[in-house]
Amino acid sequence: MSTVEKAVRADLREQMFALGRAARAAAALLTRSSTAARNRALVEAAAAIRSGRDAILAANAADMARAKAQGLSGAMLDRLALDAKRVEAMAAGIEAIVALPDPVGRIIAEWERPNGLRIQRVKVPLGVIGIIYESRPNVTADAGALCLKSGNAVILRGGSESAASSQAILACLVQGLKGAGLPEAAIQMVPTQDREAVGILLGEMGQYVDVIVPRGGKSLIARVQEDARVPVMGHLEGICHTYVHAAADLEKARRIVLNAKMRRTGICGATETLLVDRACAQTHLPAIAADLAKAGCELRVDGFKVDGAKAARPEDFGHEFLDAILAIKVVDGIDAALDHIRRFGSGHTEAIITEDVTAAERFLNELDSAILLHNASTQFADGGEFGMGAEIGIATGRIHARGPVGAEELTSYKYIVRGSGQTRP
Amino acid sequence: MSTVEKAVRADLREQMFALGRAARAAAALLTRSSTAARNRALVEAAAAIRSGRDAILAANAADMARAKAQGLSGAMLDRLALDAKRVEAMAAGIEAIVALPDPVGRIIAEWERPNGLRIQRVKVPLGVIGIIYESRPNVTADAGALCLKSGNAVILRGGSESAASSQAILACLVQGLKGAGLPEAAIQMVPTQDREAVGILLGEMGQYVDVIVPRGGKSLIARVQEDARVPVMGHLEGICHTYVHAAADLEKARRIVLNAKMRRTGICGATETLLVDRACAQTHLPAIAADLAKAGCELRVDGFKVDGAKAARPEDFGHEFLDAILAIKVVDGIDAALDHIRRFGSGHTEAIITEDVTAAERFLNELDSAILLHNASTQFADGGEFGMGAEIGIATGRIHARGPVGAEELTSYKYIVRGSGQTRP
Repeated sequence: MSTVEKAVRADLREQMFALGRAARAAAALLTRSSTAARNRALVEAAAAIRSGRDAILAANAADMARAKAQGLSGAMLDRLALDAKRVEAMAAGIEAIVALPDPVGRIIAEWERPNGLRIQRVKVPLGVIGIIYESRPNVTADAGALCLKSGNAVILRGGSESAASSQAILACLVQGLKGAGLPEAAIQMVPTQDREAVGILLGEMGQYVDVIVPRGGKSLIARVQEDARVPVMGHLEGICHTYVHAAADLEKARRIVLNAKMRRTGICGATETLLVDRACAQTHLPAIAADLAKAGCELRVDGFKVDGAKAARPEDFGHEFLDAILAIKVVDGIDAALDHIRRFGSGHTEAIITEDVTAAERFLNELDSAILLHNASTQFADGGEFGMGAEIGIATGRIHARGPVGAEELTSYKYIVRGSGQTRP
Repeated sequence: MSTVEKAVRADLREQMFALGRAARAAAALLTRSSTAARNRALVEAAAAIRSGRDAILAANAADMARAKAQGLSGAMLDRLALDAKRVEAMAAGIEAIVALPDPVGRIIAEWERPNGLRIQRVKVPLGVIGIIYESRPNVTADAGALCLKSGNAVILRGGSESAASSQAILACLVQGLKGAGLPEAAIQMVPTQDREAVGILLGEMGQYVDVIVPRGGKSLIARVQEDARVPVMGHLEGICHTYVHAAADLEKARRIVLNAKMRRTGICGATETLLVDRACAQTHLPAIAADLAKAGCELRVDGFKVDGAKAARPEDFGHEFLDAILAIKVVDGIDAALDHIRRFGSGHTEAIITEDVTAAERFLNELDSAILLHNASTQFADGGEFGMGAEIGIATGRIHARGPVGAEELTSYKYIVRGSGQTRP
């Protein structure tokens, strides 16, 4: 590294640390802020997004023009694009977050000791949350609002493609903070697209950032998990399984499998592998396969002859297609199904279709994924569908939160102990 | 690094990874083990410790002889030493863990969605816990038993001084596992004192270890926090404050402060700084100081003249003495007290002494340490005193668990969703 490079790097580090210090100071104030103040900031931010629609769309047009010139793919351009409807959805999304109960200050347990000490476990904000995301500019609004709702300060680092859009949205959020008398540094954005900044955020800011939430594709998550020196909440892959058990009701199985795979193929809760019990393969699999094929799904099958389907290759199992492709395997009974899922699953979401309650309970109890379903579609793996309101993502780690991460999961707790002069013997 | 050194390092890494794989496989079995089996293993381990007392004491005698030859300090020798009473305390400690409720499988929340999906949040073990500790051989029994109780596999890495004692205790735990038909790899010990092994455990075993719990002095914790690439539960320092508010009852203040500082000076919940409100310094501080001085406590005072006391230096505040030394500062009201604690505290435990409920509530709500007490001694910062049974330590981090970490805190959760054919619209 040259002397100039070193100086630039030192400057960047100081800039990032300043962001961290400001976030920490804001978090200390937010911890003590009222529900009303945080909700008011969100209401004003939603209003600012609505009234600032033209400015947001102009910024987005600039991002889109640059992205097109750089030759971004159609899928990426679609994620990046905003229109009046998407801007309204952002504002409405923030208002939905306002309507959620405030987790902060909630007493989650209380008990009294024989010596008269009264102990309470009370929810408090986590502190400072770092969010690293890619091209979707609406994450700026969603994630910023959810962190603020739960009393956390947030440092956002969006993708370079959406930089102008995200800045325009951030300005609306900051307007909300100002309007409610909350610190502007409660929601900050990394001011540079320098990739080194991400490295500093992940690797050197443990004293300023309590947890990192990555939102985006597999390579982003993998980098974050690899480089982060603070805890990460998220998931690398959603290799979700649906298992059609011997005692599955055929109509339920057809409906659920079709929905689990094809409702939306690009989300993390989409089923990627279908396991069919050998005992019902003859009766169930042809109809299930025909439904899928009719819906445009490519089938890759192991252990059964399905008309028009390809043979599965070993690498199709444990693979996240995020597309209209399904790996199918015929298995010998529930133990083989459980073994397959333990070996190839990513701990995200799995479903069993059966009318046999004993088999269902074994599946639900013996597997250890974040979400396990009986007779329902894996596409329910979503905070909104769980009734938790907005979510910041689905976590498959084992520390702190698993499954959908909503406002509730963005909190920690503290103990309050009330005595009357007790000393410890 | 020479070729030979590289080969040795590669060997050690493979050895550690094998330990990790075995722990992961054991954890998968433990997740599905019954409460009865885990308790039986603990009962048999306690019996094995009792019947193996002579072997444990012989191993400890060897450790002690080596430690004396190496010139270890008296305090370290005391921590290392076992006798019949301490061995019995270990066995009894394991039996107390048997008596605790099993957190695994407990339903912590359940609700039904409008579409009929019934959602449960169910406690599951964390997975694999790495415990790094120093000279106390009893940590082997305590930590091993608490991890097993909560369904976790554990990799223990004790100090070199206590290696023989810890191995003898481990043999008893493994005997318990065998007797209950549980995998022996549920409780493993790093088989080498090579310091590189700790580096590998902290930095390269993220896929095998879910969380690290360090138990020991500040330099150990600092190293673990610095080097760990997996989440750490613990605390670096316990810089606990007791604040005598203007409306403090003098007798309560005298009793509580004396206990908070002097009951045991070497534990993390001992008060290290006393803040006294200027409004009651004249009436309260002389008597409090006299009690402390009489009990042998050195006083370092800022802002008040106390007979026989030294003047506090700036570095006495925010310092963890772990000794019969107390920094005392006279502060101008509760805001100054809160500011001081925010600036110098370590987020562990703080207490206010007052008869003014409004002041107490401000202190309890506005501060953000793991444990906040009103009219009680900071030495209550302990899982046993909270009624949680055994604890593996006190956590000051904000992710996952704060305050005492017991069996309950060594768990994660999963979602079980029961449907009747639901698909997502």
